[in-house]
Amino acid sequence: MSRPRVLICGDIVWAHDETEQLLGSISEIIRMDSKSRSEFLDNLKPGGKYHGIVAIYRHNSSADRIGVFDGTLVDALAPSVCWIAHNGAGYDQIDVSACKRHGIIVSNTPGAVDDATATTALYLIISCLRQFSRAERNIHANNWKRGLKPAHDPSAKTLAILGLGGIGLRLAELAHAFPMRVVYHSRHPNPSAPSWCEYFAADRLDEMYAQADILSVHVPLRAETVGLVGEREIRKLKRGAVLVNTARGKVIDEAAMIRALEDGHLSAVGLDVYPDEPKVNPRLYEFPQATLLPHMGTETQESQRKMEVRALTNVRDYLTKASGEDIVPEMKGMKPKPANY
Amino acid sequence: MSRPRVLICGDIVWAHDETEQLLGSISEIIRMDSKSRSEFLDNLKPGGKYHGIVAIYRHNSSADRIGVFDGTLVDALAPSVCWIAHNGAGYDQIDVSACKRHGIIVSNTPGAVDDATATTALYLIISCLRQFSRAERNIHANNWKRGLKPAHDPSAKTLAILGLGGIGLRLAELAHAFPMRVVYHSRHPNPSAPSWCEYFAADRLDEMYAQADILSVHVPLRAETVGLVGEREIRKLKRGAVLVNTARGKVIDEAAMIRALEDGHLSAVGLDVYPDEPKVNPRLYEFPQATLLPHMGTETQESQRKMEVRALTNVRDYLTKASGEDIVPEMKGMKPKPANY
Repeated sequence: MSRPRVLICGDIVWAHDETEQLLGSISEIIRMDSKSRSEFLDNLKPGGKYHGIVAIYRHNSSADRIGVFDGTLVDALAPSVCWIAHNGAGYDQIDVSACKRHGIIVSNTPGAVDDATATTALYLIISCLRQFSRAERNIHANNWKRGLKPAHDPSAKTLAILGLGGIGLRLAELAHAFPMRVVYHSRHPNPSAPSWCEYFAADRLDEMYAQADILSVHVPLRAETVGLVGEREIRKLKRGAVLVNTARGKVIDEAAMIRALEDGHLSAVGLDVYPDEPKVNPRLYEFPQATLLPHMGTETQESQRKMEVRALTNVRDYLTKASGEDIVPEMKGMKPKPANY
Repeated sequence: MSRPRVLICGDIVWAHDETEQLLGSISEIIRMDSKSRSEFLDNLKPGGKYHGIVAIYRHNSSADRIGVFDGTLVDALAPSVCWIAHNGAGYDQIDVSACKRHGIIVSNTPGAVDDATATTALYLIISCLRQFSRAERNIHANNWKRGLKPAHDPSAKTLAILGLGGIGLRLAELAHAFPMRVVYHSRHPNPSAPSWCEYFAADRLDEMYAQADILSVHVPLRAETVGLVGEREIRKLKRGAVLVNTARGKVIDEAAMIRALEDGHLSAVGLDVYPDEPKVNPRLYEFPQATLLPHMGTETQESQRKMEVRALTNVRDYLTKASGEDIVPEMKGMKPKPANY
């Protein structure tokens, strides 16, 4: 009996040794080297070098060559693929419905990115409250403090967290050290949340917005979260509030956010993500009160290694146990189809 | 009997009401409006508008017109002044020895700046470890992530704090939330330090440096702290360590620091203070791995109001109780001379 074929689809940068240790003896490792989507699709067919793969390690970097895992691509994978182990917390580049239809399990790497992304959100909160990004540009322009006004301490401010999963909870802990007051909304209360995290259910969401000095967004991108923070929500915030996004750009209505920056309803924004990355709306560059990062949330050696190892472990768990811990919420309880090899 | 005369020497921006509440009924408030040092000195003489002042509220902003409180200036104050209530944690603009010789008490405003300055240090630490300042410049130059490498999470790194007073202790608490490991050196162990803060006495300082991923400086500027972090100390740090300074520029040997940036011994520096402020060594602008702020450590409305109120309260305590809580360490136990008015 041949060994199951596993496709490494996208970058592995830090965990080369671990790839060999986790998968070397139990599978045939194939590296995706297609230059285009059509070349990739061709190689999935009988006789092609990817034919018969049962599991995929996937990194967003593969999209540069073969595009995202949309319906078309998933349909092409369906005959043999049973598991897609995505490297990343957000898996909006994978059509989960199409995978579900074909019985393909999708796993992600929650937890691995919590530290790195929560640290990024904290940085953006401090930068916005203290106007440090503006201050850095000032000193680099040889202007020292000219035109800078004393800003605000995080201490005693109210931080509202939209989506208290792993990342939101890490941010809550970092903010609590100041201490900031932490309030949050999720679809359900997080049972891991400490008692000082105050839960606001959907029927009290407006009340939460009205109390927030800072709103930090930590929900995944799904059809129902597109534009979740729109004109109405932004206007419910206090005048002078700060908006921070390290989740996905499309969760915030960018036009509404820009209007609120223009008229001062928002005093500052801190953004690591944008609706049409890597394109950035040039209007954002014009606001001195905007701190902008190029999607650096998970860009640490520690978290990237953790993510790689976790995704590889999910592949291994599928191959050895036909199960895994990181199955995405939409598929919880689903069993993988049996592999043919 | 006339009321004691108090001189407001430098800015009060936030605490106008409090000035009146604290001092209005018990003193005659005189505002320093001299354009130059000579004009100021003239007005201290008999018949001058500052003659006979017994207490001074002092802010560094007064130095723009009358210079720092050096020996000459203190000598001129000596005939009547009993208390100088400095607004600020650092009081290196006051010749404390000269004050001591004349029996003039100096108080500062410790504590009031702890939150704001510790937050600044935390920001610089995150920026250095994550290379966020470089990332911000990248995106503003329309370069997205080009050339950026994954950097490091603060979690599990070792933060060495040089000088564990109020600011250092606040930073320790913020860092502990990640958690970072916190080690420190002060002349004596800080009795308020939690057990997870590991003390290194002078004879183990090299050992502390060797373990530090980040060294953050929080000692006051005194003759014996000038160049405290020099070539020798910097080279004791691990290769790739991060150096952060929110204390005073002269505490670090800038030339040694620049050499270590050039040869990569330091991977990054985060600076809020400079040896010759507001001048900045232009060489520093050339390092993409340097995060530079224009001395923003205490620039928050909350801390500035707290500092103003605290300095004014020290004046009031002197006038009403001939004592005060914030007497600088060099003068602890000293009693103010009796005022003549």
